[in-house]
Amino acid sequence: ADLYHVAGEQQSDSTAVPADLTGYTRVKMELVPPPFAPAHEQVATGGPKIIEITMETSEVLMTVDEDTGAEVWALTYNGSVPGPLIICHEGDMVELTLRNPVDSMMEHNIDFHASTGALGGGGLTHVYPGEETVLRWKATKAGCFTYHCAPGGAMIPYHVTHGMNGAVMVLPRDGLKDADGNPLRYDSIAYIGEQDYYLPMDENGDYRTYEAAGDDYGDSLEAMRGLIPTHSVFNGAVGALTGENALTSKVGETVLMIHNQANRDSRPHLIGGHGSYVWESSFTDPPLRDMETWFVRGGSAVAAMYTFEQPGVYAYVNHNLIEGVMLGATAHFVVEGEWDNNLMEQVVAPRAFAT
Amino acid sequence: ADLYHVAGEQQSDSTAVPADLTGYTRVKMELVPPPFAPAHEQVATGGPKIIEITMETSEVLMTVDEDTGAEVWALTYNGSVPGPLIICHEGDMVELTLRNPVDSMMEHNIDFHASTGALGGGGLTHVYPGEETVLRWKATKAGCFTYHCAPGGAMIPYHVTHGMNGAVMVLPRDGLKDADGNPLRYDSIAYIGEQDYYLPMDENGDYRTYEAAGDDYGDSLEAMRGLIPTHSVFNGAVGALTGENALTSKVGETVLMIHNQANRDSRPHLIGGHGSYVWESSFTDPPLRDMETWFVRGGSAVAAMYTFEQPGVYAYVNHNLIEGVMLGATAHFVVEGEWDNNLMEQVVAPRAFAT
Amino acid sequence: ADLYHVAGEQQSDSTAVPADLTGYTRVKMELVPPPFAPAHEQVATGGPKIIEITMETSEVLMTVDEDTGAEVWALTYNGSVPGPLIICHEGDMVELTLRNPVDSMMEHNIDFHASTGALGGGGLTHVYPGEETVLRWKATKAGCFTYHCAPGGAMIPYHVTHGMNGAVMVLPRDGLKDADGNPLRYDSIAYIGEQDYYLPMDENGDYRTYEAAGDDYGDSLEAMRGLIPTHSVFNGAVGALTGENALTSKVGETVLMIHNQANRDSRPHLIGGHGSYVWESSFTDPPLRDMETWFVRGGSAVAAMYTFEQPGVYAYVNHNLIEGVMLGATAHFVVEGEWDNNLMEQVVAPRAFAT
Ligand SMILES: [Cu+2]
Ligand SMILES: [Cu+2]
Ligand SMILES: [Cu+2]
Ligand SMILES: [Cu+2]
Ligand SMILES: [Cu+2]
Ligand SMILES: [Cu+2]
Ligand SMILES: [Mg+2]
Ligand SMILES: [Mg+2]
Ligand SMILES: [Mg+2]
Ligand SMILES: [Mg+2]
Ligand SMILES: [Mg+2]
Ligand SMILES: [Mg+2]
Ligand SMILES: [Mg+2]
Ligand SMILES: [Mg+2]
Ligand SMILES: [Mg+2]
Repeated sequence: ADLYHVAGEQQSDSTAVPADLTGYTRVKMELVPPPFAPAHEQVATGGPKIIEITMETSEVLMTVDEDTGAEVWALTYNGSVPGPLIICHEGDMVELTLRNPVDSMMEHNIDFHASTGALGGGGLTHVYPGEETVLRWKATKAGCFTYHCAPGGAMIPYHVTHGMNGAVMVLPRDGLKDADGNPLRYDSIAYIGEQDYYLPMDENGDYRTYEAAGDDYGDSLEAMRGLIPTHSVFNGAVGALTGENALTSKVGETVLMIHNQANRDSRPHLIGGHGSYVWESSFTDPPLRDMETWFVRGGSAVAAMYTFEQPGVYAYVNHNLIEGVMLGATAHFVVEGEWDNNLMEQVVAPRAFAT
Repeated sequence: ADLYHVAGEQQSDSTAVPADLTGYTRVKMELVPPPFAPAHEQVATGGPKIIEITMETSEVLMTVDEDTGAEVWALTYNGSVPGPLIICHEGDMVELTLRNPVDSMMEHNIDFHASTGALGGGGLTHVYPGEETVLRWKATKAGCFTYHCAPGGAMIPYHVTHGMNGAVMVLPRDGLKDADGNPLRYDSIAYIGEQDYYLPMDENGDYRTYEAAGDDYGDSLEAMRGLIPTHSVFNGAVGALTGENALTSKVGETVLMIHNQANRDSRPHLIGGHGSYVWESSFTDPPLRDMETWFVRGGSAVAAMYTFEQPGVYAYVNHNLIEGVMLGATAHFVVEGEWDNNLMEQVVAPRAFAT
Repeated sequence: ADLYHVAGEQQSDSTAVPADLTGYTRVKMELVPPPFAPAHEQVATGGPKIIEITMETSEVLMTVDEDTGAEVWALTYNGSVPGPLIICHEGDMVELTLRNPVDSMMEHNIDFHASTGALGGGGLTHVYPGEETVLRWKATKAGCFTYHCAPGGAMIPYHVTHGMNGAVMVLPRDGLKDADGNPLRYDSIAYIGEQDYYLPMDENGDYRTYEAAGDDYGDSLEAMRGLIPTHSVFNGAVGALTGENALTSKVGETVLMIHNQANRDSRPHLIGGHGSYVWESSFTDPPLRDMETWFVRGGSAVAAMYTFEQPGVYAYVNHNLIEGVMLGATAHFVVEGEWDNNLMEQVVAPRAFAT
């Protein structure tokens, strides 16, 4: 646990050469809640930037499943599960102001998988309630990367499985490309965080309730140790991306689906569609092609691109269908446009047959 | 759940342009039970085809493990777990007649991961007992793809984990190739479906029995929610591909192993051999090479190619060895031919040593 | 189970042509315990070699976790979990003398994923207490490969989950390369075996103790069947690679991390660093690039390369953080050097903010 406090001391004692910020332009990025993406360029114009962002470590009581009343004292960045999507380009710097509200119960920090050194910044960003810190790091590798809280010891999986994680997308300066170097562009981003919760139950199998953030710590650790989540949901709660909250698109439009899972493996599938281009590793590698179901190594963010060819409803699921349907990992895309009978046709509608 | 009925209404109301079937040749494909493959060309001759197939949604009581007497009311396509392998080429159309026998207990449908739109056809193929439907879809992406029943809601994982899944192989028109474009050909196909079952037990730990298909619904959902299967078997039952049912081959022969797992991740390994060419994503991507153990993302079918170099018995396993040995995921290849001492030699047979 | 004894009989009856060892040079390789690597060349000089090694199947009582007193009668190669790392080049032969000490309780053998035929040698190497055998096999495929004990039936997962596994690295003769064929060289190897243990507990939740190796067989099988390990540790025990046992490196140095997991999937992540080059499949394939978290298919060994750019402590974890932190899968690298403020800087140390 102490590991996470040593880095700061080491660095403050250090006589390292100051950073050279010559040539960088400072810009502010307004973060937005999931499933949305902040305003950004797909191809970078101008030189490298220092992108200033602010995040607050909010502890909020959330309903996970309205049907059962299951709730969790979520630990969050900016109040949402997952935390906001951050977008920059390779060679940019991200400068984060991290604030822990004075009424918080717990200390928090942040570990950016996209960054280099000091436990991804986790060793330099410990903020107690009422504290703030500023961390700047350079995006040297292109890809989608998880970030998450990592206060040390068992608090690490505890905070991560209470919602305290999100993603950074580091785009190549000249944008996404296929294996031959041809540009790949998207019309919209669907930013989906999958959250595995391990909610404690009482002897009757009812979900326990707690007075304040952190009160479920002991019970949660016991539930977590079994490695089987009670819920695995998209964007914090069952149904957060279905019904009235469904994502929307049109035939001919291209969506970039960014899937963040900071802890547990997942295997997304778009029912009725495909992952035409999937970056499971990084944007340095060419994308995998035409996948039915792709893989999110637990502790990763991945991107998958698809151009809709048919109208209707598509379900984006964790294709362990028990997790997708019963544990909650389902989102919907409602797509408008003209049906293409060349791709699929109901030649004979269901009818009784002669026996 | 309703999602699955909306698509049909939408499409029947639609004013979409009729399909243009000019240039297609109609052929019938006779489906065969696993682990066998239907008669097919590796390199397509002639123009694109409309391949007519028929499947019946049979509900059958199956013994999963003779040792324990564990049984399941399997939900199947054509009476086998997995359902039959379908093979076509990129650019072909598959035209399926799906019939639900009049004495079935449940409604069924089919979602083809290889297809595009209407929940993979799931929204257009709901058949109640005594009903039939005909669906035609175009294979636009080359690879091995899962198909499965998806009636809606918790019935989706229930049907899938009761055996109702199988695979389509969509070959490139000019056949399989390595990364340099050289042709890769096989002498035989071994089509292996891995099925995770979650069989309900009574208070003594004995497997429950049920009168009819569907009677285990409530108990099964409870067992499934824990995400730990009681069995993970190849081709429906423990031992379905060992002993008298072992697969056979010869030194110098090349086998294409198609592994379908519609729900849960797996990691096949051929004990004594390798995956010389493995297509985890699609046939659009070059195959991975020389793998000891490859990966089947839950909700995927993958292909792996190997040319036998030694005689003897090879065990094909899910290399979580607990699943492979104790939960049932083992198949055998019995391979004839001459031993090659250059590849391996027992220099000294086991003998007592001086201490 | 018998499968494992048939191969030896078959081969001893065989009239196969003797091996042609012309052109091979015999050398002895001194094996060393993990996390260290034996002396070896990255680029092979001279012609192919026959590399002679010796391993002993030791059964040893090990403490898994000092905090809880959890212990296991580990089944090992050469007394360590994992067994020693073996290194050769493609085209070399490995000639193993395997000895089972006379005071052992159990029979053992070895299955090399890197080899071809006879169940990876498992069918030719069964040694009872007091026996030895010699097996020679040719390394025809380049990559990192698991080896493990596989005595037959449920003894296979039992031995593997009691520590009886390790890795062979088969280097290309001209060494590791990137996708463009440029050489990739390392300064050190960190050989990390992840071991999933399923330790039986009594009714109070305390770990059981046993008199001798094998005494926990029945209890262990029961625990294993649930598929959820009680521990998942690096190099045999909690803390085996942290604190005083931490790995060390320097800024500018390149480490090759070899991760062996013979049974269960894992997803390693280097906190504060990356997998700049990751070989998940084999060295025949170009490495994946810039991964935040890579994947070890259960029953695989993989290699990941990273050049340290910052000083400090890095934690190498299974990034299912419950497994990494609570089940034990954490190692530390302590890296010396100068901090680079251009990569990361704590612009404002944590301080109170005005509300
Ligand atoms: Cu936190
Ligand atoms: Cu992390
Ligand atoms: Cu069905
Ligand atoms: Cu599906
Ligand atoms: Cu053994
Ligand atoms: Cu193995
Ligand atoms: Mg870096
Ligand atoms: Mg509460
Ligand atoms: Mg990523
Ligand atoms: Mg399509
Ligand atoms: Mg029955
Ligand atoms: Mg597939
Ligand atoms: Mg071979
Ligand atoms: Mg003991
Ligand atoms: Mg390997």
